[in-house]
Amino acid sequence: MLNVTLLGTGGTMPLKNRWLSSCLLSSNGHSVLIDCGEGTQIALKAAGHKFKSIDVICISHFHADHISGIPGFLLTMSNEGRIKPVTFIGPKGIEHNIRSLCVIAPNLPFDMSFIEYTDNMEFCLENMRIRAFPLKHSVRCIGFTLELLRVGKFDRDKAEKNNVPMRMWKLLQKNESAELDGTVYTSDMVLGKPRKGIKVTYCTDTRPTETIAENALGSELFICEGMFGDNGKLARAKESGHMLFSEAAELALRANVKQMWLTHFSPSLTDPEAYIDSAKKIYPSTECGYDGKTIDLMFDKE
Amino acid sequence: MLNVTLLGTGGTMPLKNRWLSSCLLSSNGHSVLIDCGEGTQIALKAAGHKFKSIDVICISHFHADHISGIPGFLLTMSNEGRIKPVTFIGPKGIEHNIRSLCVIAPNLPFDMSFIEYTDNMEFCLENMRIRAFPLKHSVRCIGFTLELLRVGKFDRDKAEKNNVPMRMWKLLQKNESAELDGTVYTSDMVLGKPRKGIKVTYCTDTRPTETIAENALGSELFICEGMFGDNGKLARAKESGHMLFSEAAELALRANVKQMWLTHFSPSLTDPEAYIDSAKKIYPSTECGYDGKTIDLMFDKE
Repeated sequence: MLNVTLLGTGGTMPLKNRWLSSCLLSSNGHSVLIDCGEGTQIALKAAGHKFKSIDVICISHFHADHISGIPGFLLTMSNEGRIKPVTFIGPKGIEHNIRSLCVIAPNLPFDMSFIEYTDNMEFCLENMRIRAFPLKHSVRCIGFTLELLRVGKFDRDKAEKNNVPMRMWKLLQKNESAELDGTVYTSDMVLGKPRKGIKVTYCTDTRPTETIAENALGSELFICEGMFGDNGKLARAKESGHMLFSEAAELALRANVKQMWLTHFSPSLTDPEAYIDSAKKIYPSTECGYDGKTIDLMFDKE
Repeated sequence: MLNVTLLGTGGTMPLKNRWLSSCLLSSNGHSVLIDCGEGTQIALKAAGHKFKSIDVICISHFHADHISGIPGFLLTMSNEGRIKPVTFIGPKGIEHNIRSLCVIAPNLPFDMSFIEYTDNMEFCLENMRIRAFPLKHSVRCIGFTLELLRVGKFDRDKAEKNNVPMRMWKLLQKNESAELDGTVYTSDMVLGKPRKGIKVTYCTDTRPTETIAENALGSELFICEGMFGDNGKLARAKESGHMLFSEAAELALRANVKQMWLTHFSPSLTDPEAYIDSAKKIYPSTECGYDGKTIDLMFDKE
């Protein structure tokens, strides 16, 4: 099961009733945070989530509304008892930017490691796999795909064919390998092909691109920026490197995702729901995000 | 008239219902902000104040809860049209810390200048005079006294004795000097001794010290930290470099201030009012601060 929670859904500046865009993805006691603007620590607490389990922080780009909350967030993580290392994934310069912000958080009790985006990079945290891909914004910016991978079904015939002792069968369904009497057995000796996992794609801030549709392909949940609802604001969207709701819907359609949530609303967009039809008529399974919107995504029954 | 507004009254971390300690002092279209933690920009907006008129930002020290909101705050200032320079006053290292945080706000449309605290420093903004003094915390930390200075009354006898032409009288009550027919006249030629102004003293984070009482002497309003209400938390206060309500009240008494507001409450102190008596029985004119608490301080009638 993968829980996805929008901590905030605003762009540019935090508002009294809308936190800056941020998303938490959690599975099996591990969490990944995407973006951390001013106030994200309050939003996380309000949504009832824990700081201590956040192993990875993904930063889409270095505009303040996506990163300004980092020093306070990390200090609160340390207040909440985090001592295990934290990994940051972001565009080139991620380490410099995070360390600069941490001038006011100099003595954190955990190590930080940094992964700069490169083509085909991926990072695995147990069975969560994070990939990133380039977006098209006014500065270097990346989107993220997080997949909860799922092993194949137990295949008794295969296990017998591979002469795996019966008492190893259960163990190998949970571990990649195990040893018995000097022989190493691997999980692929007892399992069928990996089954379909759960895929979530998150992208903001960006203009629509084919790369987004390719990377979001087949996602259970596609979380996409929709800075402007009104189709009349296309010029403004182009100029600022953002999207209309309808452009996000076109992407969702091309990527054949199961559902799309819109996020990163302009401060001037006080009622995103008023424009939802402009997206729904292109891609019906569209919903407006809101702070605290959450879903538990499950593996298929099979 | 000097307006004083507490934008936030919390310590350590921003809470859903309490912003981090910050104070805005405004007079005649100019404002001074003291401290700027995560969320201060939202608090300022909620209190109905303007970003554009903030000429000076005072930073007490570099713990994140007093400075982490800077990059977002400055960006919102620029969004609100500020182009005039902004002056920062803070402990040694103020420029390095502000510039490090501004790694995510690299293109601000206004210049920033920096004044590092030194003994006897003062900075004047029209008739507002800002002074700073050392506090006693776990890191280098300073308190601030802001005085709204008031010129003397018009003295007709003095003006005549100094042979100041009558048509210059009004001008010299508003300007330090003016010229007529090649002769320079100064305001002290027509004015009596400077009258009592308005003095406000703000200090957090700190243990009580004699220096605080000396600097707060005779303030109309003394805003002082009270991290802990319960007198039983003295050891905790000493250890963390903070104060009890009752210790703040002792200072207010020694400094003979007109009234005191407590601020910078511990996140664990959910109801500061429950402990107000511990201060009031030492110094009766004590009030608990709260986010948005505001007062207009007026010159004496004379």
